[in-house]
Amino acid sequence: MPTVAKSKSGASKARKTSSKGTPPPPDPFDLLCAELRAIAVLESVQRTLSWDQETLMPAGGSALRADQLQALSGMLHERRTSRKFGDLLRASEEAHASSDDELVRADLRELRRDYDKARTLPKALVQEITRTQSLGIEAWKHARQGSNFKAFLPWLQKTVDLSLEKARCYGVPKGGEPYDPLLDDFEPGMTAAQTREVFTPLRARLVPLIDRVRRSGARVDDAWLRAPTTPGAQREFCRRVCERVGFDFTRGRFDDSTHPFCEGIGPGDTRLTNRHREDGWSEALMTALHESGHGVYEQGLPKDKHFGRPIAESISLGIHESQSRMVENFVGRSRPFWQWAFPVAREVFGDALRGATPDAVWRAMNAVTPGLIRVESDEVTYNLHIMLRFDLECAMLNGDLRCRDVPGVWNERMKRDLGVEVPDDRRGCLQDIHWSMGILGYFPTYTFGNLYAAQFWEQIGRDIKDRDALMSKGEFAPILEWLRKKIHRTGKRWRAAELCRRITRKPLGADPLMRHLEAKVDAVYGG
Amino acid sequence: MPTVAKSKSGASKARKTSSKGTPPPPDPFDLLCAELRAIAVLESVQRTLSWDQETLMPAGGSALRADQLQALSGMLHERRTSRKFGDLLRASEEAHASSDDELVRADLRELRRDYDKARTLPKALVQEITRTQSLGIEAWKHARQGSNFKAFLPWLQKTVDLSLEKARCYGVPKGGEPYDPLLDDFEPGMTAAQTREVFTPLRARLVPLIDRVRRSGARVDDAWLRAPTTPGAQREFCRRVCERVGFDFTRGRFDDSTHPFCEGIGPGDTRLTNRHREDGWSEALMTALHESGHGVYEQGLPKDKHFGRPIAESISLGIHESQSRMVENFVGRSRPFWQWAFPVAREVFGDALRGATPDAVWRAMNAVTPGLIRVESDEVTYNLHIMLRFDLECAMLNGDLRCRDVPGVWNERMKRDLGVEVPDDRRGCLQDIHWSMGILGYFPTYTFGNLYAAQFWEQIGRDIKDRDALMSKGEFAPILEWLRKKIHRTGKRWRAAELCRRITRKPLGADPLMRHLEAKVDAVYGG
Repeated sequence: MPTVAKSKSGASKARKTSSKGTPPPPDPFDLLCAELRAIAVLESVQRTLSWDQETLMPAGGSALRADQLQALSGMLHERRTSRKFGDLLRASEEAHASSDDELVRADLRELRRDYDKARTLPKALVQEITRTQSLGIEAWKHARQGSNFKAFLPWLQKTVDLSLEKARCYGVPKGGEPYDPLLDDFEPGMTAAQTREVFTPLRARLVPLIDRVRRSGARVDDAWLRAPTTPGAQREFCRRVCERVGFDFTRGRFDDSTHPFCEGIGPGDTRLTNRHREDGWSEALMTALHESGHGVYEQGLPKDKHFGRPIAESISLGIHESQSRMVENFVGRSRPFWQWAFPVAREVFGDALRGATPDAVWRAMNAVTPGLIRVESDEVTYNLHIMLRFDLECAMLNGDLRCRDVPGVWNERMKRDLGVEVPDDRRGCLQDIHWSMGILGYFPTYTFGNLYAAQFWEQIGRDIKDRDALMSKGEFAPILEWLRKKIHRTGKRWRAAELCRRITRKPLGADPLMRHLEAKVDAVYGG
Repeated sequence: MPTVAKSKSGASKARKTSSKGTPPPPDPFDLLCAELRAIAVLESVQRTLSWDQETLMPAGGSALRADQLQALSGMLHERRTSRKFGDLLRASEEAHASSDDELVRADLRELRRDYDKARTLPKALVQEITRTQSLGIEAWKHARQGSNFKAFLPWLQKTVDLSLEKARCYGVPKGGEPYDPLLDDFEPGMTAAQTREVFTPLRARLVPLIDRVRRSGARVDDAWLRAPTTPGAQREFCRRVCERVGFDFTRGRFDDSTHPFCEGIGPGDTRLTNRHREDGWSEALMTALHESGHGVYEQGLPKDKHFGRPIAESISLGIHESQSRMVENFVGRSRPFWQWAFPVAREVFGDALRGATPDAVWRAMNAVTPGLIRVESDEVTYNLHIMLRFDLECAMLNGDLRCRDVPGVWNERMKRDLGVEVPDDRRGCLQDIHWSMGILGYFPTYTFGNLYAAQFWEQIGRDIKDRDALMSKGEFAPILEWLRKKIHRTGKRWRAAELCRRITRKPLGADPLMRHLEAKVDAVYGG
């Protein structure tokens, strides 16, 4: 009996054993998968260290941590962009040129894209971007504190210049614009033009909706959300809710950090963080639900089997965000959810909620209040903050807007879209960290998340007829199973647009989200 | 002006700049130090991951964690034993053959020892040891549970055989015995014969001392130690005490784990763990003080400056243990300590200690109770447990004791030394994990710790005249400063025996520890 090398990827199943009985040479794709796994293990070390840094590391450990992370990122960059890696990739492409294995094809498609992108940028540019990033963040912190846009202006200009250079290296597609290759880093395959196609009708319907709320003069009483509760009780409530919606604590944790996040460290280890305020419990709950959505996605990706391969990774930031927004907004702000969750909250928080009703809490959770700060904004107004940033980024990159004119345009648009006056740049165009980190092309993924979530949620409603009745009894397993099957387990097999068409039989559009928001405003504020 | 490469180690200070003004070639020792630092950074990653595994990691993460640690240990073994490393070491030795820099000489001495030891063992033997280890631990767990020595016997025999093979590879010095090179792994430079020289008089005085306590019929009332306290209160008390004795929480942490330990991750990051019982608070406190002793040593090593160099590392397990035992036994079980600590305990534990006195708690902390289990034994009887193990290990390695005869010899000696009957092997020769891990030569370092601690403590008493008065006021800074200067900051500059002579002007002996224990027994049980 010939010894046949065990194929880890399964890709070599289709290859023939030599008729002479000698074992075939190893499939280059198997070797590639072994290297991908080794790289993924080192990446998971990076993520463990980053998580520790944000949650537990004593202050004195920061210099060592920087050295640890630098050592790992150096090793990883070398392995990901090495000639050896490139050779394996090319050999795999040749060996599987006509493969009918959809997973292998998806892997090779994504690996080629990543490898070429990683090697496209000259080292000098990468270093310049990294340097600008760390200096830019410091400059931004000071500028924001003093509400001094002028102090930040050179860094914004530098960010635009370096982004244009980066886009030029990646290559701007014919008929496209510089925004396209930048956005592609975060939302592969999406373009600025396609984004506008969805954003334009979304904005056209959102602005009058918010105007309607404002002019109605109705006020939602949200005092219950500020009922006095301890961080300990908040943690307990969040834990019970997150466990129920599907986060598996035997394969994950929940800790505290200054800025909440989800770290999918690797197979069997996904960690969420949250923060707790003494003056209100709703922010902690919504954050916990949001991060749980991310966490449940990470736990559902097929990492146990394919760790390191693209098919075990998430599709895009937009799809990742769709999972967190769905749990936060479509589950956690829904009436049926509160029918189940309210008694739990009463049990955990005790007298703090005496006299409240599920309906009162649900209503408080859905107040629409146009404001200045994106991260504090409600579900309805949130997307207008994003679209403003997207339009400004495109205009700067296309040369239609000078950086120094950003504050004026920002403030004028905030007045027009949300009816709010921006009193200073600190609460205006200096509020976000992203531009200071040299990141252009990221913001739209937040709204993609909301759009995808709405479109998937409608489909879930069609596929699971008693969805809302189940939720009101705290039964989320059928929804989780739907997500596992349709989204989580498919990894990066399809790009986001393709996934959306396969699941909903339609391209991404503004209608589902607008239907959801309009119905909610009707219910909360009256038709 | 010629550019002179900055010397990180300082070793090249003595080297001449070429008279022609061209920079000299880099000092190989500087290159070696850079490599040592890079290795140390990766080792610190290992330690971060190990710490996380023992404290926080969700159960599901264990397979990934094993992969992470395996990847790192593979990389590290390769770098530590590489030909390149060997070449740098040899070149450094040649360049600094006549160096008068004591630090460089100490580094080269230790590096040569480690490098040769690491390359001495054939790969097949290392793999066999590793495999036996993981299988042995499982076999031991089952054998202990069922108190079935026969089931463990083949693994004990295997451990002895592999240890003999290891000793043969390391080389047994002329006139020495196989135990010597094994002990040298943990206590560099120490031999079995030297150990016996100290252990023999120690045992000769300990056995009658314990006999005296037993025959006195006196009973110490330790009910206060079981006063009901919450884990939260215990944590608070431990934290306050450990901070006071010198553990710096801005450069470290205290968490919970099943088995308490101290992990000196690297510069600025030292982490301790503890465990808490509902039925008594003293174990948590003593463990906290013990681990703090280790932690304060780690925090005092000159890692900020010399991370990666041997001169920034601890001397030996025995010296490390001396620091933990000193804080645990010489500080934490002393009368002056309780004069300060008792009011703190009252404040934290509240009514649980109503009616207690500093003296009653101090006395309870010092009860002498011969028992079966090493890790539960008191300060006086502890060392007899160790000496039993040391004698058995030597006898097995020297061929004077067959493995199958271990239980009989063990039980007979427990009766003779401590007056206790061993009812089963679970509470006898199967109680420790060490032999199942293939470790012979480790146990004596625990008693070395007690011996060194006693000898150093007497010297501290001579150097700081009001030592006890300071302790009774909770002023530990002068003691800490003494330890920093005399021990911590010297790193591995001297071997343990040399350090002991330099500090106390005497070789290690049994007298200081016996004086300490005899005085204590007198005070607690009456002269």
